[in-house]
Amino acid sequence: VTKPLRIGLAGLGTVGGGVARVLISRADALAMRAGRRIVLTAASANVVRDKDLDLSSVSREDSPLALAARDDIDLVVELLGGHEGAALELVEDALSAKKHVVTANKALLAHHGGSLAALAEENGVALSFEAAVGGGIPIVKAMRESLIAFDVTELKGILNGTCNFILTQMESTGRAFPDVLAEAQELGYAEADPTLDVGGADTAHKLALLASLAFGTAPDLAAVSVTGIEHIKPADIAFAREFGCRIKLLGAARLNDGALEQRVHPAMVKAGTPLADLEGSFNAVVADLGEAGPYIFEGRGAGRGPTTSAVVADIVNIARGAIGPVFGRPASSLVRANPTPLEARQGRYYLRFQVLDAPGVMASISRRLADAGISIDSMHQPNRPPGEPVAIAMITHEAQHVAVRRALKAIAASDNLFEEPCMIPMENT
Amino acid sequence: VTKPLRIGLAGLGTVGGGVARVLISRADALAMRAGRRIVLTAASANVVRDKDLDLSSVSREDSPLALAARDDIDLVVELLGGHEGAALELVEDALSAKKHVVTANKALLAHHGGSLAALAEENGVALSFEAAVGGGIPIVKAMRESLIAFDVTELKGILNGTCNFILTQMESTGRAFPDVLAEAQELGYAEADPTLDVGGADTAHKLALLASLAFGTAPDLAAVSVTGIEHIKPADIAFAREFGCRIKLLGAARLNDGALEQRVHPAMVKAGTPLADLEGSFNAVVADLGEAGPYIFEGRGAGRGPTTSAVVADIVNIARGAIGPVFGRPASSLVRANPTPLEARQGRYYLRFQVLDAPGVMASISRRLADAGISIDSMHQPNRPPGEPVAIAMITHEAQHVAVRRALKAIAASDNLFEEPCMIPMENT
Repeated sequence: VTKPLRIGLAGLGTVGGGVARVLISRADALAMRAGRRIVLTAASANVVRDKDLDLSSVSREDSPLALAARDDIDLVVELLGGHEGAALELVEDALSAKKHVVTANKALLAHHGGSLAALAEENGVALSFEAAVGGGIPIVKAMRESLIAFDVTELKGILNGTCNFILTQMESTGRAFPDVLAEAQELGYAEADPTLDVGGADTAHKLALLASLAFGTAPDLAAVSVTGIEHIKPADIAFAREFGCRIKLLGAARLNDGALEQRVHPAMVKAGTPLADLEGSFNAVVADLGEAGPYIFEGRGAGRGPTTSAVVADIVNIARGAIGPVFGRPASSLVRANPTPLEARQGRYYLRFQVLDAPGVMASISRRLADAGISIDSMHQPNRPPGEPVAIAMITHEAQHVAVRRALKAIAASDNLFEEPCMIPMENT
Repeated sequence: VTKPLRIGLAGLGTVGGGVARVLISRADALAMRAGRRIVLTAASANVVRDKDLDLSSVSREDSPLALAARDDIDLVVELLGGHEGAALELVEDALSAKKHVVTANKALLAHHGGSLAALAEENGVALSFEAAVGGGIPIVKAMRESLIAFDVTELKGILNGTCNFILTQMESTGRAFPDVLAEAQELGYAEADPTLDVGGADTAHKLALLASLAFGTAPDLAAVSVTGIEHIKPADIAFAREFGCRIKLLGAARLNDGALEQRVHPAMVKAGTPLADLEGSFNAVVADLGEAGPYIFEGRGAGRGPTTSAVVADIVNIARGAIGPVFGRPASSLVRANPTPLEARQGRYYLRFQVLDAPGVMASISRRLADAGISIDSMHQPNRPPGEPVAIAMITHEAQHVAVRRALKAIAASDNLFEEPCMIPMENT
């Protein structure tokens, strides 16, 4: 009989409580899956959220770091959060002590993934993070172990459920971003400080991890270009529909001749495609692989159930002996690719201008776009009485990102606009 | 350095050729994934489809069975097809000789999965079959290794790309089943003998495997109730739209108090849901897991690229040491569940009658339905001049399958119908 796998759990919040509960109450079912017992040996937590949880069989530590030092623990589950301090120290200590680590901490891995992967592999232990990306989508395992026969050519996803919830709500209610955000906070779909979510950083963390898994590059968070959804107006949502699109916060990555493009921004996505049609707080990932694909995954982005499920699956897989390289290829082989700046990107763009509907305004905007070599594919201008403010929206033909930016600057400086022009890339699908 | 994994490949058709090509041309990339070399040592085939394939480094056998007997082979890839004869013998021989087996053969596993799983586990080797279900969806691995922390409550899928292509084409063109089938055959989307696909048996094979993975039951093909799509008329496709639905061939499984429901049939699926919106020859699977889920997977159903990708991923995972139980739990633990007959199922039903639009016909049909305790939720009857044949479509309230069947029999026997009444279950979503 194989020895049991002994777990030390750092953090007993929403997810940690869920993990503890499953490890204890479903021990027999998990043993059948794993081929050995999995025992929750010790836990550390400031607060235990789930008051009904019976932890009488579990040894308690005041400090999470004590878990990494115990001889009777084989695997540490890190659910502290944060990319520095206790979380980083715990993971480093645990790996150095030849203990496996399972974590849901996307920020930690996006910042330190390369070095932590090397540390895990040096010590012959696993570092698994299914719960860090798309809690309800087993995408880390899929990228690591399933989509491997061909090179990934492109990867796109909706990786933040809060943003997708807000954008979906703005669409269905016509309300403005601040209103919908406030509602999302009340409903618990958005944090008290929503910056990480709506500013795009959370998506960037996840994208950096997926790009590493997809392309064999070291996670490179600093090279992700990030734009959030705070500037999206109800007018943009409405125009998107006119143009047959929906606005989604995308994370997308592609390797072009050794240069890595990683971008997070709101995009106009053609309605009727899986990413455009994703509703509410769900996440989705689309991966293309040369001769195979597209592979499409959808599921809940977060929450106790899906995240618990992802953490427990990692534990069971490690119990069974799945101790492959952290990012699917040996850490020593991970390349640091040159980043492709977003500015170099060729594409079509949605532009919106808030102008006074007076003779000559449209002519001036058009001329400045033409001067920058940018031509217009289609335009939409709702009727307004002359002399009133009006929104003009257009889709450009293919143009370089930097050229569009420059033209918008010129227009904003010279023409009579009521607010900053809005620019949203059209996504090719 | 770990020893290379030596492969014997039985079958060099479309998929076998793709596998051989990837194993040879991407050997370095695969070695990085697997942590060891993977070598295509020997192959057997009547026909080599891919004439550009350089097999000079590969030893050739006339009989596939010889692969199982060779001392210099660690893993046999079975791509012969068929659930008896050479394929069965090869897999049995290989497992008995302690060689791993990778197969794309859904029929073989649906018929003999329980005993082959036991044989593999006795011999301490892997039997992997990612390519057997949803070629372009890594669903076998997901069910086996990712969706395991909670019990699967329900599983539904569109598992046959040919049927989904035909139904999608019938919808977009308004043409009849035989026409669209003939076109699909010309395009290579349907086999010369399409019975396995359009009759539902192929979906049943895949469903039996997914149900086993989901519920810990032994694959039980005989207990799947199967209805194909041959009887679907353009009128049904059109009415589906009127009722806000699309018709899809579903495979669905559920475990109710230890009784296993496995059903394959065309279903009315609410538009705007992932299964309803799936276009063309794609496959999709939706799995629900108590507190987690839904987990949604979409991808190509078949074809050289996706199937090659699935076979190669299985090989790489075995090379890395993934030798878990075949259906995710020890073969000895697989339960033989009592089947739930479809007849016992409660649900709403779409019914269509081709009648002469004469006074009294509708009254008679309604009365017979009422006599059987079946009430009507909504009805649709396009205008026709009196005295001409007309189609009447309706959706019932909840009723038992067997009661609806019995009422239709009575109506068909007594009323003046132009063809057999059509009955399609409404799918709860």
